[in-house]
Amino acid sequence: MIKKKDKYSVAVVGATGAVGRKMLQILEERSFPVGNLKPLASAHSAGKDLLFQGKNVIVQELLQDSFIDVDIALFSAGGEISQKFAPVAVKSNCIVIDNSSAYRMNANVPLVVPEVNPNALKGNPGIIANPNCSTIQMVVALKPIHDKFKIKRVVVSTYQSVSGSGQKAINELKVQSQEQLKGKSSLPNVYPHKIAFNCLPHIDKFLNNGYTKEEMKMVNETRKILDDDSIQISPTTVRVPVFYSHSEAINVETEGPITAMALRELLAEQAGVCVVDDPENNIYPLAINGEDKNDVFVGRIRDDISRDRAVNFWVVSDNLRKGAALNAVQIAELLIDGE
Amino acid sequence: MIKKKDKYSVAVVGATGAVGRKMLQILEERSFPVGNLKPLASAHSAGKDLLFQGKNVIVQELLQDSFIDVDIALFSAGGEISQKFAPVAVKSNCIVIDNSSAYRMNANVPLVVPEVNPNALKGNPGIIANPNCSTIQMVVALKPIHDKFKIKRVVVSTYQSVSGSGQKAINELKVQSQEQLKGKSSLPNVYPHKIAFNCLPHIDKFLNNGYTKEEMKMVNETRKILDDDSIQISPTTVRVPVFYSHSEAINVETEGPITAMALRELLAEQAGVCVVDDPENNIYPLAINGEDKNDVFVGRIRDDISRDRAVNFWVVSDNLRKGAALNAVQIAELLIDGE
Repeated sequence: MIKKKDKYSVAVVGATGAVGRKMLQILEERSFPVGNLKPLASAHSAGKDLLFQGKNVIVQELLQDSFIDVDIALFSAGGEISQKFAPVAVKSNCIVIDNSSAYRMNANVPLVVPEVNPNALKGNPGIIANPNCSTIQMVVALKPIHDKFKIKRVVVSTYQSVSGSGQKAINELKVQSQEQLKGKSSLPNVYPHKIAFNCLPHIDKFLNNGYTKEEMKMVNETRKILDDDSIQISPTTVRVPVFYSHSEAINVETEGPITAMALRELLAEQAGVCVVDDPENNIYPLAINGEDKNDVFVGRIRDDISRDRAVNFWVVSDNLRKGAALNAVQIAELLIDGE
Repeated sequence: MIKKKDKYSVAVVGATGAVGRKMLQILEERSFPVGNLKPLASAHSAGKDLLFQGKNVIVQELLQDSFIDVDIALFSAGGEISQKFAPVAVKSNCIVIDNSSAYRMNANVPLVVPEVNPNALKGNPGIIANPNCSTIQMVVALKPIHDKFKIKRVVVSTYQSVSGSGQKAINELKVQSQEQLKGKSSLPNVYPHKIAFNCLPHIDKFLNNGYTKEEMKMVNETRKILDDDSIQISPTTVRVPVFYSHSEAINVETEGPITAMALRELLAEQAGVCVVDDPENNIYPLAINGEDKNDVFVGRIRDDISRDRAVNFWVVSDNLRKGAALNAVQIAELLIDGE
């Protein structure tokens, strides 16, 4: 854990990005005991002003000596930056909470969702990995199912928002939508194809087995977080023209006799989950309602009509919050509470 | 079948709707031997002009005597109109091809996808049902799998375009998108929630088992078309902010030893299917590419890493064409060729 203090010196690496800005916002709204805040970014962004607790803070260039006297660094500037600077931070006795995929599958690095596997934080790791957005919201819902009924297999299809690709993708969806509505068109830039009014069955790079990296993250990270490599997962990850929040259609088969009714009760007790499930009144989780909320919303809970001991449900969460910045700040909260 | 003629008198019921207009277009582009074309609609739309084979044809009001001397009537005006007027048409010795759900599960009514179960047309039925859009594109891909490997179970998640709800839904997505991009908002009308930049896990009405009618159509119609009630299907149907073409993420488990490689070969031979599957070069089926095409496009074909004898793939097709108007015209073609 971390040495107890009244206030902590906190660095945010990638502070001007979509997740970095959300990290500042969440540190503030959850009254994290920040003494000194150090927003770090590339030379390109250094010098910019950001607002934190009502004051302007100036973005500094990320350098080798940036982590001197910093207690906790939240990294969200991509895998390469994490690989280069997380070890530098650790050498300065700074604990790193890394939102990139660089260290997630490293056996010595805990991969943590605070509602699911807080005990993985035990010991004093230098680097703690924040899981992938699509994994986090799924695993929060899967945890009580696995504990009670033991999961055999998950088939999941995702409906992921463009904010997962950062601010430039948000802008691309806006611009492409505006142009199409005016009968014009522009070349795609962030994605290989047009995202406006389209669905792309392609997130992150393709691997040799025909799955994307995003899909294999859902497989491997879920197994690591739930600490059970016997869980079988078959994912299809899809980018949809939505700005914020990911949605997921999840089918789960279990060893034990799961039912929709039992699942609804389990999820009602699960920390971090909000059950939104009254289809007769057109009430179910929606991406537009998940936006800027902290919960993982679960609905359309129903028995699988195709197989016994199986259920279907629909999970929505804000990918920038629970899927990234909030989960990282919650890990930091566990660290400072842990002493 | 139908009595052989050089030209046929063809009525289109619901001629001014999104599917009705597409029916006229497809009759024309496939050079269906239309002698007399009779566009029919409600009194509200009667008198409107439609273009067919370069000439204006005037929409007539749908009445009890509308089907006298009509050989084939393509219905696409909703279940109530079909229930009221299909029997009237049949009494006038007119064969009805009905795009509504009214007669699909009637044991005496063939439910036909020409590439899949043309033999169901044998005999001389008065009414032939056109399946639901999301079912048609799935079943075209499932047919060769079932024939060769016997399907045990399908888990499917859909990404369905708004054109499936007609022209008013296309307009609603346009208007809502324009308003949101200007920072404004409007109340939803066609759907219970905003569809712009959102995903709705809700298509058609909810039933007592927690599934929607759309989902149960995928279950029941697939079993009827493939003539095998042992096929187990677990669907989640979702409306996405796309104008044309439905996409589907499909997982299939089989009795026999299916592999992605075998499936790719099977689908390459399947009539009506176009395999689009070169992920390394970012090539896979996309809704925007399916628009106004006749094929069912299949890609992202891969072995299921979660289970033996299982595969994943992604299917896209134009819901107004193969999912509705084209399939109906193909049925009419079978009828006139059948003698």
